[in-house]
Amino acid sequence: MFESAEVGHRIDKATYEKEVIALREALLDAQYELKQQARFPVIILINGIEGAGKGETVKLLNEWMDPRLIQVESFLMPSDEELARPAQWRFWRRLPPKGRIAIFFGNWYSQMLYARVNGDIKDSRLDIAIDSAERFERMLCDEGALIFKFWFHLSKRQLKARLKTLESDPQRSWQLSQVDWLQNQVYDKFVRYGERVLRRTSRDYAPWYVVEGVDERYRSLTVGRTLLEGLQAALKLQERPRRHPHAAPLVASLDNRGLLDSLDLTQALSRDQYKTQMTREEARLAMLLRDKRFRQHALVAVFEGNDAAGKGGAIRRVTGALDPRQYHIVPIAAPTEEERAQPYLWRFWRHMPARRQFTMFDRSWYGRVLVERVEELTAPADWLRAYSEINDFEEQLVDFGIVVVKFWLAIDKDTQEQRFKEREAIPFKRYKITDEDWRNRDKWDQYADAVGDMVDRTSTEIAPWTLIEANDKRFARVKVLRTINDALEAAYKKDK
Amino acid sequence: MFESAEVGHRIDKATYEKEVIALREALLDAQYELKQQARFPVIILINGIEGAGKGETVKLLNEWMDPRLIQVESFLMPSDEELARPAQWRFWRRLPPKGRIAIFFGNWYSQMLYARVNGDIKDSRLDIAIDSAERFERMLCDEGALIFKFWFHLSKRQLKARLKTLESDPQRSWQLSQVDWLQNQVYDKFVRYGERVLRRTSRDYAPWYVVEGVDERYRSLTVGRTLLEGLQAALKLQERPRRHPHAAPLVASLDNRGLLDSLDLTQALSRDQYKTQMTREEARLAMLLRDKRFRQHALVAVFEGNDAAGKGGAIRRVTGALDPRQYHIVPIAAPTEEERAQPYLWRFWRHMPARRQFTMFDRSWYGRVLVERVEELTAPADWLRAYSEINDFEEQLVDFGIVVVKFWLAIDKDTQEQRFKEREAIPFKRYKITDEDWRNRDKWDQYADAVGDMVDRTSTEIAPWTLIEANDKRFARVKVLRTINDALEAAYKKDK
Repeated sequence: MFESAEVGHRIDKATYEKEVIALREALLDAQYELKQQARFPVIILINGIEGAGKGETVKLLNEWMDPRLIQVESFLMPSDEELARPAQWRFWRRLPPKGRIAIFFGNWYSQMLYARVNGDIKDSRLDIAIDSAERFERMLCDEGALIFKFWFHLSKRQLKARLKTLESDPQRSWQLSQVDWLQNQVYDKFVRYGERVLRRTSRDYAPWYVVEGVDERYRSLTVGRTLLEGLQAALKLQERPRRHPHAAPLVASLDNRGLLDSLDLTQALSRDQYKTQMTREEARLAMLLRDKRFRQHALVAVFEGNDAAGKGGAIRRVTGALDPRQYHIVPIAAPTEEERAQPYLWRFWRHMPARRQFTMFDRSWYGRVLVERVEELTAPADWLRAYSEINDFEEQLVDFGIVVVKFWLAIDKDTQEQRFKEREAIPFKRYKITDEDWRNRDKWDQYADAVGDMVDRTSTEIAPWTLIEANDKRFARVKVLRTINDALEAAYKKDK
Repeated sequence: MFESAEVGHRIDKATYEKEVIALREALLDAQYELKQQARFPVIILINGIEGAGKGETVKLLNEWMDPRLIQVESFLMPSDEELARPAQWRFWRRLPPKGRIAIFFGNWYSQMLYARVNGDIKDSRLDIAIDSAERFERMLCDEGALIFKFWFHLSKRQLKARLKTLESDPQRSWQLSQVDWLQNQVYDKFVRYGERVLRRTSRDYAPWYVVEGVDERYRSLTVGRTLLEGLQAALKLQERPRRHPHAAPLVASLDNRGLLDSLDLTQALSRDQYKTQMTREEARLAMLLRDKRFRQHALVAVFEGNDAAGKGGAIRRVTGALDPRQYHIVPIAAPTEEERAQPYLWRFWRHMPARRQFTMFDRSWYGRVLVERVEELTAPADWLRAYSEINDFEEQLVDFGIVVVKFWLAIDKDTQEQRFKEREAIPFKRYKITDEDWRNRDKWDQYADAVGDMVDRTSTEIAPWTLIEANDKRFARVKVLRTINDALEAAYKKDK
């Protein structure tokens, strides 16, 4: 994989200087066009051998282009806020908005490679990390991002020569950190694992570019031209190409509403039953969140359901036993401007609880496959891929120890109508009911289809859906609370 | 100050239950109206004696109102990201957007009080903290925020009784943290300093409400009614009242442009001079930022100037000697939706560098007193108060060790015209020149007045303006770099 990057490519000064003038202008032009269009972000990943010119090239790109529109991020030691959340969070929070360029040093590839080279992880964990990177990048691309992955390379001989030169140059010897020297010792490992990573993560939508680093001019022109051509091509396309799944179109299976239809909505609790059970579950939740074992976890509860199914009431009942400092409630409304400039899941990632925290989502990322699907706000190709993106996302949460509980609050059509009318009659509830709610009601069947598919495709063993029979509010509230408690208990048990 | 909160106010159950029903509905109504109007945020500060019902009241407010629209923030141990920035940053980042309610536990008052009671700070530092809180709150109010400050009180006798009750109740004894008991020992100090703080920070625009905490019903109704009346009054006003300064209107003094006019714009450097001096200053900057002493500092450089004065070029030249991982450039454009829902300075606070970081602002918070003043985007009362708000803001940065350097790049009218025309002719610079630039040019004198006032009012001993003669780009770039270097050196020297 690296052979052709060890042959000693060089470019003479005259050729270089002639080419650079045109290249710089064209890059600047493309950069401003990118900003004007503001249709997609550009992410440049910088990896490879130390001493092969990674830092120098990034510096040069900042000189050639307008550095005010480039954000350079190096992911060194994670902060404690980052350590308290899934590893992906620190990358999500630094993603560039549409129209901007970000250069990521010390990205997911460096982290997996250093971990493997140091022996902190084995091959199987490396493969998991590779797989996760691939999924992440595919999602970014599907969301419109243009990704460049550069591997700066030097042969072992070239690296040794490079280190010697640096050593003897008093002006630059400070660049020789211990890492660089260490790098020399572990060169073979680094290259071996590097090849494995590159081979498995070079994809049509985000290929690797291996750049021979020994000659500054060659390396600079190669990177500059690659960027320019990629940028120009992407800018020309009126629409970013959509990856259409090569698969049979999704049709509602005959019984995808089987689960919903099989709910026994007549289930109810008497006032006394409710009081007894509620008191018990509230005490349980209070204890479970105060439990020492919760320090290794966090809790995410997702509330979806028919309009007027009682999401708000259920959420309030969950908080009943808790100190308000123990939880956060995130009501999901239309995305803001900053959120629209980011991948779909970004606006949920930003609210992910840190360890020991409990966050409730009043509506959630499932809007993608519910309202956005039914109201045709999102193209089928996009909401279709959301199922697996969401499963990946939730896996990242669960892997970190976050307990994910998801509720669909189901009522029947008559109950909904009755509640709509009640709400319209009560002054302080009038805000809760709008014309839109009545319109959504006309699409009852389409929503039911969407819910059926959603549950089929995203009720996973790690983050299952719980359907809540919500015609009776008391029954629903107790079941919600009990489900949360059971999930926490199950998670603690698994901690061994 | 606390006498009337020690008399043992009580409310009987019947009265309470009758009142609460109406109160809850009215509070919910006000809350939804607040959300709909989305004109101002509400900030509720919770302070006072431990055991006086702070937590219980907040819990109750969450039950009475819609908890999805309330964010409860407790500021316990700062994270390392917070410790690396001025103390105010952690409050800024948690401010509620317009239309929302935030409840702040452990806010600035708790912090100053605990610090004083523990003897970590003396009276003089307490007074500085009080002064700073007062300025912060006035700014928030001027920006539209509605602030409620509650002090929950118990007499010493009441507190002792309360602690005994808790102790004997196995269900609630866990609430007795060490702090509570400690509180009992230090009660006198806490009340003494509390009085000082309340007396000095109770203002018309953000008064304290002292709530006797011994009777739950009395305390709950008091807080609920206070909130309701305050909310209703604020919602009724079509416009939040503007505090008009009781002062002579600001007129441009006869010589406020004296400094600008006295600049010798003919100053220039030859190509050779430039090369020599630039190389020297670049090396200096590289060394100064690698200096161990920089770890205790951060660097903020603000670039303002006439259109086409060369801000971008100057910024790029500053980065010339640096690794792109060492700096961030923040280009200031129109505020986003999320930024518009916050106080004016919020969008700059969010970009403040952590320790050891260097951030350049391409245009800045001074837009308030430049473009917003001249183009009449902001009412005079608002940009007039900005001078002192900005001085307060920069003082907070400097107090933390951030070196603040501010540049006004000045060119004359002829030079500007020439550069505009040049830019129009060069393809990759055509983005830099718009009709707006030509329109701004017609307001040359008004801008010059605004610059004169800005420099007069915000060139402080801790963060002075440096006027840059920028007709000659080489001269300007060297002076910018040298000024930054001098400022860093001066800061290091002061470290002793």
